[in-house]
Amino acid sequence: MSSPIRIGVIGAGRIGAVHARTVVRRIPEAEIRAIADPSKDTAKKLGAELGVPRVLPDYRELLSDREIDAVLICSSTDTHAQVITEAAKAGKGIFCEKPLDLRLERVDEVLAAVKQARVKLQVGFNRRFDPDFARLRRLVADGAAGVPHLLRITSRDPGPPPLAYVKVSGGMFLDMTIHDFDMARFMMGCEVEEVFVAAAVLVDPAIGQAGDVDTAIVTLRFANGALGAIDNSRRAAYGYDQRVEILGSAGMLANANHTPDTVSRADGDGVHAPLPLNFFMQRYTESYEAEMRAFIDCLLRDQPPPVTGEDGRRATLLGYAALKSLKENRPVRPEEFLASKKRKR
Amino acid sequence: MSSPIRIGVIGAGRIGAVHARTVVRRIPEAEIRAIADPSKDTAKKLGAELGVPRVLPDYRELLSDREIDAVLICSSTDTHAQVITEAAKAGKGIFCEKPLDLRLERVDEVLAAVKQARVKLQVGFNRRFDPDFARLRRLVADGAAGVPHLLRITSRDPGPPPLAYVKVSGGMFLDMTIHDFDMARFMMGCEVEEVFVAAAVLVDPAIGQAGDVDTAIVTLRFANGALGAIDNSRRAAYGYDQRVEILGSAGMLANANHTPDTVSRADGDGVHAPLPLNFFMQRYTESYEAEMRAFIDCLLRDQPPPVTGEDGRRATLLGYAALKSLKENRPVRPEEFLASKKRKR
Amino acid sequence: MSSPIRIGVIGAGRIGAVHARTVVRRIPEAEIRAIADPSKDTAKKLGAELGVPRVLPDYRELLSDREIDAVLICSSTDTHAQVITEAAKAGKGIFCEKPLDLRLERVDEVLAAVKQARVKLQVGFNRRFDPDFARLRRLVADGAAGVPHLLRITSRDPGPPPLAYVKVSGGMFLDMTIHDFDMARFMMGCEVEEVFVAAAVLVDPAIGQAGDVDTAIVTLRFANGALGAIDNSRRAAYGYDQRVEILGSAGMLANANHTPDTVSRADGDGVHAPLPLNFFMQRYTESYEAEMRAFIDCLLRDQPPPVTGEDGRRATLLGYAALKSLKENRPVRPEEFLASKKRKR
Amino acid sequence: MSSPIRIGVIGAGRIGAVHARTVVRRIPEAEIRAIADPSKDTAKKLGAELGVPRVLPDYRELLSDREIDAVLICSSTDTHAQVITEAAKAGKGIFCEKPLDLRLERVDEVLAAVKQARVKLQVGFNRRFDPDFARLRRLVADGAAGVPHLLRITSRDPGPPPLAYVKVSGGMFLDMTIHDFDMARFMMGCEVEEVFVAAAVLVDPAIGQAGDVDTAIVTLRFANGALGAIDNSRRAAYGYDQRVEILGSAGMLANANHTPDTVSRADGDGVHAPLPLNFFMQRYTESYEAEMRAFIDCLLRDQPPPVTGEDGRRATLLGYAALKSLKENRPVRPEEFLASKKRKR
Repeated sequence: MSSPIRIGVIGAGRIGAVHARTVVRRIPEAEIRAIADPSKDTAKKLGAELGVPRVLPDYRELLSDREIDAVLICSSTDTHAQVITEAAKAGKGIFCEKPLDLRLERVDEVLAAVKQARVKLQVGFNRRFDPDFARLRRLVADGAAGVPHLLRITSRDPGPPPLAYVKVSGGMFLDMTIHDFDMARFMMGCEVEEVFVAAAVLVDPAIGQAGDVDTAIVTLRFANGALGAIDNSRRAAYGYDQRVEILGSAGMLANANHTPDTVSRADGDGVHAPLPLNFFMQRYTESYEAEMRAFIDCLLRDQPPPVTGEDGRRATLLGYAALKSLKENRPVRPEEFLASKKRKR
Repeated sequence: MSSPIRIGVIGAGRIGAVHARTVVRRIPEAEIRAIADPSKDTAKKLGAELGVPRVLPDYRELLSDREIDAVLICSSTDTHAQVITEAAKAGKGIFCEKPLDLRLERVDEVLAAVKQARVKLQVGFNRRFDPDFARLRRLVADGAAGVPHLLRITSRDPGPPPLAYVKVSGGMFLDMTIHDFDMARFMMGCEVEEVFVAAAVLVDPAIGQAGDVDTAIVTLRFANGALGAIDNSRRAAYGYDQRVEILGSAGMLANANHTPDTVSRADGDGVHAPLPLNFFMQRYTESYEAEMRAFIDCLLRDQPPPVTGEDGRRATLLGYAALKSLKENRPVRPEEFLASKKRKR
Repeated sequence: MSSPIRIGVIGAGRIGAVHARTVVRRIPEAEIRAIADPSKDTAKKLGAELGVPRVLPDYRELLSDREIDAVLICSSTDTHAQVITEAAKAGKGIFCEKPLDLRLERVDEVLAAVKQARVKLQVGFNRRFDPDFARLRRLVADGAAGVPHLLRITSRDPGPPPLAYVKVSGGMFLDMTIHDFDMARFMMGCEVEEVFVAAAVLVDPAIGQAGDVDTAIVTLRFANGALGAIDNSRRAAYGYDQRVEILGSAGMLANANHTPDTVSRADGDGVHAPLPLNFFMQRYTESYEAEMRAFIDCLLRDQPPPVTGEDGRRATLLGYAALKSLKENRPVRPEEFLASKKRKR
Repeated sequence: MSSPIRIGVIGAGRIGAVHARTVVRRIPEAEIRAIADPSKDTAKKLGAELGVPRVLPDYRELLSDREIDAVLICSSTDTHAQVITEAAKAGKGIFCEKPLDLRLERVDEVLAAVKQARVKLQVGFNRRFDPDFARLRRLVADGAAGVPHLLRITSRDPGPPPLAYVKVSGGMFLDMTIHDFDMARFMMGCEVEEVFVAAAVLVDPAIGQAGDVDTAIVTLRFANGALGAIDNSRRAAYGYDQRVEILGSAGMLANANHTPDTVSRADGDGVHAPLPLNFFMQRYTESYEAEMRAFIDCLLRDQPPPVTGEDGRRATLLGYAALKSLKENRPVRPEEFLASKKRKR
């Protein structure tokens, strides 16, 4: 075996801890050399759990360490662009949580920096690595449903995030639907050419007062001619609802929600089955591990990452198109949007 | 018991035979007095099967019979408006298959005639009487899902109709989606205020050459603030797909497709379950009986029919809005459409 | 078409009415000429519903009518043997509800009489004609599960019958399990060679006081080497539970219960689905029609009936073996039982 | 926090590795101090993976280490009795894989030694800790199904073990059904009073030649009056089938098999769903972790273990009763068996 990939973790919060544990416990081909977090306590606690003695308050120290091959950027969203840019300059392999940035121009700059530095960048669209969605994609690609005609994505959270978060999140389309935009592109294997949004504030008026929506149907028109619909809600009383359905010329593919157990109870009132898993980190446990493995693999084999910076940019672009469609109540082509952005410059 | 409702059947084709059999075999409170069909053989055959000796080539003879209380109009679509108008003048109770007419102006005229004659008119939106959809509606009305947020209707035919039919059908929205428009209004208990259509020709290019589409996603905005999406396809390789899902503040309601049996087979390749029933007359057998019972009931009890002429008109109106949205690639409000119609006059 | 089979109905109660309606409404190749029932009102009512003017208090009058080809024996169980014997002598085709008789000797006599008269006798094991079970049998026969290894039958009533009925029913094994014995033989296509019963009174002590049991597991050993288990309960709080599962060398076949609709509701407590149909006449509606069609077909085509007198006798024999196993708490071979019966003679 | 429980692992094979990984990765309240295995390479490899430098060829060295609080006995079955006895004398807490021993007398001796040493012994019936079965048991205990009437356990392996293993395994009842016997006692919360076995060799004649069976239906009579049926097969072509169903006075509880994903495909032939997980270590991953946690917990809190030596003994006893029932083709009471064993002494 070649020597293991040496990893620095930037950001030791919830998702940083998930990735760090995966590397330590599940991926013998990688090892964690240092953990950086502005909160030294947070970094220390994670370091202690995982047997990583080196913890740093400043990620720059980690970037300047020549014995570190790659970084996992798990810091807050507003730092992503800056950290990626510096990591690229430092020649590190980069895994970064989504989104790259909420501003499309900034995303373009970041991708340019990554390109110039010729480093690898994988974006954290973990759902692609979920066993259900990975298999669905393989089946679509293998033609198991024939030529795709219709895609339906049901993506509903068990409850809205805190209002404070809503205000800085970039809004539902850039925070939540962005995963579904990526899923749509992933499933179809082609770009979205037009977006139409019907959205409303039905879950909580406070979300509307914060300038956001909480319920939406997003219609997509794909480059391959197929049509798609995403339906989003910030609140599904029965739990986290994550379903994808593809109708093609030869049939239909679909997944179902995951439950904590399979126990049903039948009494005089009905047959009662368990609710979907309520929390995204439980629902997507396996996907986090698989995406990290994929990242390490692409470094070891010097292959392109399975989810690229361009994937991150495209999903953000669709979020922008959705916002414009919402504002102007008309279908919006991302292309048109890019054009208007250029004009603005 | 009061004396039975005396029925005349107009049109002895497939759907006419269904309704006539229901009346004879299942509804002791009604009896069939005569069957009219331009094809005397067709009428005779049905009459022989059901023990109805009186068969007529001309429905007018039936309308002028004072011993007939009500008529079932099951003739071809292009005759509906004329027959309803005459039946109304003759003071008959009227059950008419959908659509009332493909032209909105003509529908308005027909409804005016019915109103003036003060007769009852029930339109054949049979799906409202399906055990699944009837129960879903009751649950929605009872608040079992809380306040409705999202409605999703999956409505896919096993295969496209003959091209000759496509050409005279008024197009997918007035022929097929019209059932879904009615379902949407029925489920939500309120009007649709805006329609956006994304549609394509993906099943058969000949359908496109005939000026129609075969695949669509229709976004709906309801007066109660909820959103809806209908997805249609003229071809689901796995059979007739008829599902409705409602997300509300308190949970989700949904039905599943019906299968001819429940037998599954598990072997080394997977668990294999039966396909949905393939033919609408099998899938909706119970609904045809229940709608006929409801019609006879409303006559017996002198109650308003459960599906009115206005319901027929509204669904047609939504079909028009869908066509306009498709043509202009923008959301269309039925109201706006009505206004534009007025301007045209 | 040949002239229709002319039917006499003996017994106009619940099941007699079911069969008579099927003949009148669904089978143009047959017609009902007369209905006999000791209660003239019952017969009259059914005759009026179905347009059969001839109603008789005494079935003998019907048997002596040379214009009647076949009879449906739907009278009370204790009359079956006598009526079959007389009908056989009168040369009628015979459909008789199960059981032929509760006494095995009497069954033998009846079958001898039928054999001597060379008439057709079909026994009313309707479940063989259920779409689920008919398809399961076809799949087993076609080898879809390979060589059968294990058969499991779940057969549970929604609630116990009235105590008065329990006392005259012959006990659970001859009244309820007899259907499962027939199903076991039907599914496997071979005889049961050994029966072991574990049974208890768990539902209602009064059933025990009446000398019967209400809960049982019956183990079967088949001539083809396979094993089987029937589990019975007189009370499933969630409804009528009717499932069959076959494990074979190549996989598993199974059916599921039928529900009145497919609507599920998901809320904060779980996903709630509808209960199985509660009443056997609803659950088995289609089977009653199909078995009647099969009877008429076998008369028309002069073919052996699909469920023979021997089938009726074998199921009864298994009931006897079950009773003996229960009494002696040991596995009992029907053969041994027959031997002991011979010795007794 | 108190200082962690110091663990020695005895046997570094497949299941030993599973438990050791759980302790190291998932249970901060415990740590592994040494790993003993006659194959030093095996021990070394596991030690290297988990950062445990101390590996020993002889478990006795480990038992004499006073700095070790408890041992996980994962060595071959024929060593269990000896190792437990010595570990008990050394005062260690003991987790031992099932079975304790294949000879009932030996089990009694082992339990006596454990009792005398006043140490804790937990037996590895991991299925009790599976999320499905743990929840089923809680529901039964809470009366969610009312008073239990019928228990059904479906327990089928995807394929038979190697013939060499069959010969030393003690036979299907002591090797495979023993888990189901424990499950039966666990679910019902009471003892089995009578066992009847119908068994056959249907999967592979070689198994029969080795003196074993591969297919069985085991009927159980419980002390609480309820009845049970276990069905076993050494070969389910569709995968590992692990289902439990309880019918009680108030309803039914049941679980379903677990699948690697939830993706279904509908085409012109049917709806195709994934097979159950094929391998017991995948199916029961969560249970292995939970049982290890429970063992550490009982040590930390000085509580009785959740699965006791007596549980191990009772399951073995039922295996003996099953073997006797098979041999003598009659129901066998474990009590009777104990009596006969006493007589033999």
